[in-house]
Amino acid sequence: MGIIVQKYGGTSVATPARLRRVAGRIAQTLEDPECVGVAVVVSAMGHSTDRLIDLAHRITPAPDSREMDMLLSTGEMVTAPLLAMALQARGVPAISLTGLQAGIRTTGRHRHARISEIRPERLVDTIYSGRVVIVTGFQGATAELDISTLGRGGSDTTAVALAVALGGDHCEIYTDVAGVFTADPRVVPDARPLAGISYDEMLEMASVGAVVMHPRAVEIGAAYSLPIWVRSTFGSGPGTIINGEANVEGRQPVRGIAHRTDVAKVTLVGVPDRPGVASAVFGPLADHGVNIDIVVQNVSHDGFTDLSFTIAEADLGMARLVLEQVATDVGAAGYQATADIGKVTAVGTGLLNIPGMFATACRALADAGINIQMMSTSEIRITFVVDRGRVIDAVRALHRIFALEKL
Amino acid sequence: MGIIVQKYGGTSVATPARLRRVAGRIAQTLEDPECVGVAVVVSAMGHSTDRLIDLAHRITPAPDSREMDMLLSTGEMVTAPLLAMALQARGVPAISLTGLQAGIRTTGRHRHARISEIRPERLVDTIYSGRVVIVTGFQGATAELDISTLGRGGSDTTAVALAVALGGDHCEIYTDVAGVFTADPRVVPDARPLAGISYDEMLEMASVGAVVMHPRAVEIGAAYSLPIWVRSTFGSGPGTIINGEANVEGRQPVRGIAHRTDVAKVTLVGVPDRPGVASAVFGPLADHGVNIDIVVQNVSHDGFTDLSFTIAEADLGMARLVLEQVATDVGAAGYQATADIGKVTAVGTGLLNIPGMFATACRALADAGINIQMMSTSEIRITFVVDRGRVIDAVRALHRIFALEKL
Repeated sequence: MGIIVQKYGGTSVATPARLRRVAGRIAQTLEDPECVGVAVVVSAMGHSTDRLIDLAHRITPAPDSREMDMLLSTGEMVTAPLLAMALQARGVPAISLTGLQAGIRTTGRHRHARISEIRPERLVDTIYSGRVVIVTGFQGATAELDISTLGRGGSDTTAVALAVALGGDHCEIYTDVAGVFTADPRVVPDARPLAGISYDEMLEMASVGAVVMHPRAVEIGAAYSLPIWVRSTFGSGPGTIINGEANVEGRQPVRGIAHRTDVAKVTLVGVPDRPGVASAVFGPLADHGVNIDIVVQNVSHDGFTDLSFTIAEADLGMARLVLEQVATDVGAAGYQATADIGKVTAVGTGLLNIPGMFATACRALADAGINIQMMSTSEIRITFVVDRGRVIDAVRALHRIFALEKL
Repeated sequence: MGIIVQKYGGTSVATPARLRRVAGRIAQTLEDPECVGVAVVVSAMGHSTDRLIDLAHRITPAPDSREMDMLLSTGEMVTAPLLAMALQARGVPAISLTGLQAGIRTTGRHRHARISEIRPERLVDTIYSGRVVIVTGFQGATAELDISTLGRGGSDTTAVALAVALGGDHCEIYTDVAGVFTADPRVVPDARPLAGISYDEMLEMASVGAVVMHPRAVEIGAAYSLPIWVRSTFGSGPGTIINGEANVEGRQPVRGIAHRTDVAKVTLVGVPDRPGVASAVFGPLADHGVNIDIVVQNVSHDGFTDLSFTIAEADLGMARLVLEQVATDVGAAGYQATADIGKVTAVGTGLLNIPGMFATACRALADAGINIQMMSTSEIRITFVVDRGRVIDAVRALHRIFALEKL
């Protein structure tokens, strides 16, 4: 199996006692005679990143991104040497490396940097010298050797990219849940961990609220056909394998139901239906950092149409400011905005290829008396926008109609 | 005055509010038209280094030095970007740099590394581009780009070395006291800050308990004739200038009285007086990391002598273990050890050149009824070892007899 790359998230390394347990798991991995060596990627301990962000905000409401990166990088730089010490205390040779030392080069866009190159010479040398390498997740260095961070979920990205660079045959992501579930178990009590899910399905699940894996990490796995194994750090279950297999567990057309409630809906009413309107609306929003999610534009009546779209709830205030002006500019009758909505998404590679699946999903919501405000589909996904108060009911209804509780 | 290097200690940067005040002081420095630019060296905030050490000890009682260096380096890496943010929030362009980024190269002896080279190109470029540079104190990087720390007082060393590398005409050390005092003000209420003190005097003061400046930093200042200014961060006093002037404030032969109580005394009794004995005693102690301070050997009687020396109290347990064996090896009658002692030292370049000074010091102790257990002198210092319970009395007696309370 060659070199194994494992990533442990913040909850798994939150205390010295947990770090010792993680060290035990790594030592166990090394006992496999086929294991050539282990590289470990760690997150910051528990909520330490949040504490650092809070510290910065006590200095200034709008801290500089470059300085934030230096500050935030210290979170993982605490975890990595502590885990190395825990391994050494068990008699396992280990060494910690920062992203810079591990040869992770990134673009210079601070707080949202992207890995541009990994120079794995030192990693490889160290592993073949018989030591476990602990790499700080979430960070790298720019060409100027400035510290950069990879944004939310960055440690997953580090792990998958390292597995690719080291020629590992898979990457193991250890987390506080037993794998990727068919739905959030807090919402659907009989949701179960999936044995497998395809990259595409995982990308859809991740982008609609199943936060077990960051989409960018999945994208890298897909690009290099590297299987990603999501498992519980302290449990013993098999976990979920994310790979290129479209139907790793039989013919079930729907793989899972994801949802999120941190969204808002905006409708521009009575928009003149002419070329350039969409650009006039979405350009200024993008300029102000507002990302658009689902967009629905209906057929026009008498040259006017309604344009609806969803955004992150956190961006609603900014969107309102922008739309005051934009509505006037494009000659719309006005706009409506509400945060009282949520998104529910059924994901599965077989979804749209099997006749009747879409109708089945719609019927499940209708039977539960849930009104569909907007909907959007892709090859492997159906998303419904519904009242926020009905999101949980919608998740349960879809989970039931597709019989996801059954293996 | 060119580029100014300022160092702020842990107490000065312990909270966001204090960081903002430090930023204010830096901004004030920049207002001087003769100031070309400012480089700032910072320590870790408050007791954060102690917290990191505690965290490591919760993992293992004997953490690896290399891993400790990575862990401990995060303390200053939190302070530096926060101070940069505080300056930016005032409209002062600023950037933080780690020791590695600032070009500070060290030897590879982790936890006790020494600066081997400073490559100041990036520092200089940044300063001349009009930005304040905030450098993490206490740390550098080895040739392999591993993080190394400089040991206790390392941030002072960083500051003075940077001032030399940047061609500054002095270095400013900001601390929580108003300068170098004639004695510890908690012991001698009428102790006063000195206007000036020579490098040699400061080295003696620092090594015997006046912990305002680390001796290594003073040594670098002396080697490059760089004046070091010790001042209060939040006070307005002039502080103390450390430079090459032997008698910056007139003819006073004694500059200050230092003391420390974290010492112990060991006496090997009835040692055969023959060549090689000292080596047979101190060799094994050095091998076990026990540093020897003052050594006294008296004339021998009938071929036997007593050998007394002082060590750090923390090393007493290890010294006892070593001496059990050593006493037998050298044929000594036995050994005695006690921690019930302290050292009191009078420092001043004029001390031994002016007849009667030594006698005056001894008389002061005699008049106070204090028994001298051991004594040791250098060109500019007299040290007395006395009962620990009489240390404070001895400091006061010497401070009084040399009239140090008077300007």
